[in-house]
Amino acid sequence: MAVGEYPFAKIHSVEGIKLGTACAGIKSNDRDDLVVIEISEGSSCSAVFTRNAFAAAPITIGRRHISQANIRWLLINSGNANAGTGRQGIEDAIECCRTLAGLRGGQSEQVLPFSTGVIGEALPLSQIIDALPNALDSLSTAGWHHAAKAIMTTDTRPKSMSIALDLNGQSVIISGIAKGAGMIHPNMATMLSFIATDAKINPDLLNQCIKAAVDRSFNRITVDGDTSTNDACVLIATGRSNAPEIDQRDTIYDRFSKGLQTVCDHLAEAIIRDGEGATKLMRVNVTEAASDEEAHQVAITIAQSPLVKTALFASDPNWGRILAAVGRAGINDLDVRRVNISLGDVLIVKHGERSQDYSEQEGQDVMAKDEVPINISLGRGQSSEFMLGCDLSYDYVRINAEYRT
Amino acid sequence: MAVGEYPFAKIHSVEGIKLGTACAGIKSNDRDDLVVIEISEGSSCSAVFTRNAFAAAPITIGRRHISQANIRWLLINSGNANAGTGRQGIEDAIECCRTLAGLRGGQSEQVLPFSTGVIGEALPLSQIIDALPNALDSLSTAGWHHAAKAIMTTDTRPKSMSIALDLNGQSVIISGIAKGAGMIHPNMATMLSFIATDAKINPDLLNQCIKAAVDRSFNRITVDGDTSTNDACVLIATGRSNAPEIDQRDTIYDRFSKGLQTVCDHLAEAIIRDGEGATKLMRVNVTEAASDEEAHQVAITIAQSPLVKTALFASDPNWGRILAAVGRAGINDLDVRRVNISLGDVLIVKHGERSQDYSEQEGQDVMAKDEVPINISLGRGQSSEFMLGCDLSYDYVRINAEYRT
Repeated sequence: MAVGEYPFAKIHSVEGIKLGTACAGIKSNDRDDLVVIEISEGSSCSAVFTRNAFAAAPITIGRRHISQANIRWLLINSGNANAGTGRQGIEDAIECCRTLAGLRGGQSEQVLPFSTGVIGEALPLSQIIDALPNALDSLSTAGWHHAAKAIMTTDTRPKSMSIALDLNGQSVIISGIAKGAGMIHPNMATMLSFIATDAKINPDLLNQCIKAAVDRSFNRITVDGDTSTNDACVLIATGRSNAPEIDQRDTIYDRFSKGLQTVCDHLAEAIIRDGEGATKLMRVNVTEAASDEEAHQVAITIAQSPLVKTALFASDPNWGRILAAVGRAGINDLDVRRVNISLGDVLIVKHGERSQDYSEQEGQDVMAKDEVPINISLGRGQSSEFMLGCDLSYDYVRINAEYRT
Repeated sequence: MAVGEYPFAKIHSVEGIKLGTACAGIKSNDRDDLVVIEISEGSSCSAVFTRNAFAAAPITIGRRHISQANIRWLLINSGNANAGTGRQGIEDAIECCRTLAGLRGGQSEQVLPFSTGVIGEALPLSQIIDALPNALDSLSTAGWHHAAKAIMTTDTRPKSMSIALDLNGQSVIISGIAKGAGMIHPNMATMLSFIATDAKINPDLLNQCIKAAVDRSFNRITVDGDTSTNDACVLIATGRSNAPEIDQRDTIYDRFSKGLQTVCDHLAEAIIRDGEGATKLMRVNVTEAASDEEAHQVAITIAQSPLVKTALFASDPNWGRILAAVGRAGINDLDVRRVNISLGDVLIVKHGERSQDYSEQEGQDVMAKDEVPINISLGRGQSSEFMLGCDLSYDYVRINAEYRT
């Protein structure tokens, strides 16, 4: 199940980026599960990695490599996370990088490895190595769609976004793919996203761009509150566009950043729409908070509440559960008499109590839709924050109870 | 559904305490939903209330009354929480107290009101007032069992515990009842507990006792992470026992405290065993933490994780999800190479990776049981903490999706 229609976006190819896929037979023999992304020389690469202390082996290796070398290849497998695998896992990740680099005449350190799937099982190293030549044979600038499918785990559909910007009369492309459906939470949960642009951009600015964009997109979604061991978002800039180089924080930088944000927003929303068992999307907006932190705290408390999520699944405007979540969000000295709660445009709670004008039917009409905006006004200040979430359905339980069996 | 057998404990009556019940027809006409507990003059009363900022009207009034007067009556209704009901809710709660006090010749301030049930609907005041005389007619020292049933909402069974202590050759009774199944989380979630003793005890010590006992019992259970607007635990001491007065922190105090802890532990575990949709009990023990706070943080992160909870439901020893939860618990500089994870006595993760000796069958044997101990050793210090939780099942979703419909 997933929320709403989601046609796979047409992806503009990015000069300097080729993608190849193959079937290594990690979980099954009838789908691709291995991806190689080859990056042209002279490109810049930025990445944001999971903050989980049990970072998987590929994350550990990836952090090391990106600090040591110019990255030329991304190697991604689905079906096995190579997490909780100790020293052997580290060695396996290194061996994957070494093999790929050897086949292409590069250095191991120029490869960033990524794995997603079951935690705690040994990486099927020989299967991956055997499949590498097939992945390389299929390298193509048009390989985005195949790659988006090959990185899926419990996803029900591939996720992509691509835009063309006009920067001073020259085109700049930003294209990206992502995967993720469960273990989704701020700080990079089980999601991977690979984004490339042909923009010429100073590496420091590239870093700033991607961190800011991730913070407002992938760090604003929650399916189940679980942060995985394997997650990362990578942004590559090949510099092949004829647009002027972005080397300072000017209007060109701002337009590029805004474009990148659009791509990340779209991919993050695609993940939440495909949240495990999701039938509804919730957009929680908290306004009039005293600080960004407290706005965030209220938004995430609502988006994570199992009781709000099951009410959403039932299309039940059970606003008492929203109110209870606001109340337990840990805001100091919250004066509930200043709190308003709306579902969409329907004001339900006014000054901390049920609005006189509210009718249950109005609430039900909002809840019956695919997308449910939950708006909270705290009456304490000027800060606001948002969070995207989804409902908690029977299918969430089924998918996660059956995952390994 | 609920975990394990749970025979309703035989309750020793407590001299000075009478309980009466009646049907006010709040949710249905075929069960009692109103309880009056009458407390003899000269008793002491301590209470711990929810920390939810949207505290319900009865909580607001209860806090006020307990600071103003000697409490002589508790008035409890199930089926309606009188929460999110604003000024009218406050007036309704006061009117309930006033009416009860009038019928018994006391002051409004001597009544503590409690409500549990749906949030955001007006309290059916006249129904409650009309039923009060019936509840008073049934006042009896033997009314505990009826009262335990009348305070139930989504509970599948009444919960009680009663012990007799021998303090210097004299008997002291501690008896208690509780309700709660959903919105269960530290800081008093949707649970109510009423405990009475005939001990003579200094009111300050009574306060200390109940706070300590609640902290180690009701604040160590989580069903769904939601903290409700209505929860409270009340401890009454009638002083009618012939045992010596407890007026200092000596061995007698210690034995009384330990007895109270036993009662609270039992009631808290009864709540988690009856968690909404629960089929399994999880006992998370975190040891070798650098501080109590970090031990608690790890324990609660595991106990709350939807992925750990669904694995538990499936009896799947998916230890990667436990490891991922430890890793995202926010412990600074966690060295995963010092972390061990066991299911019961079965060591699964040793020094941060899968133990060589571990076999999946051993893990499955532990997971197949009703009670699953999850033991985490962090290798950072001497502190330890525990948390009780339950699984996340289809029935949890069903119960909470259907609650109002």
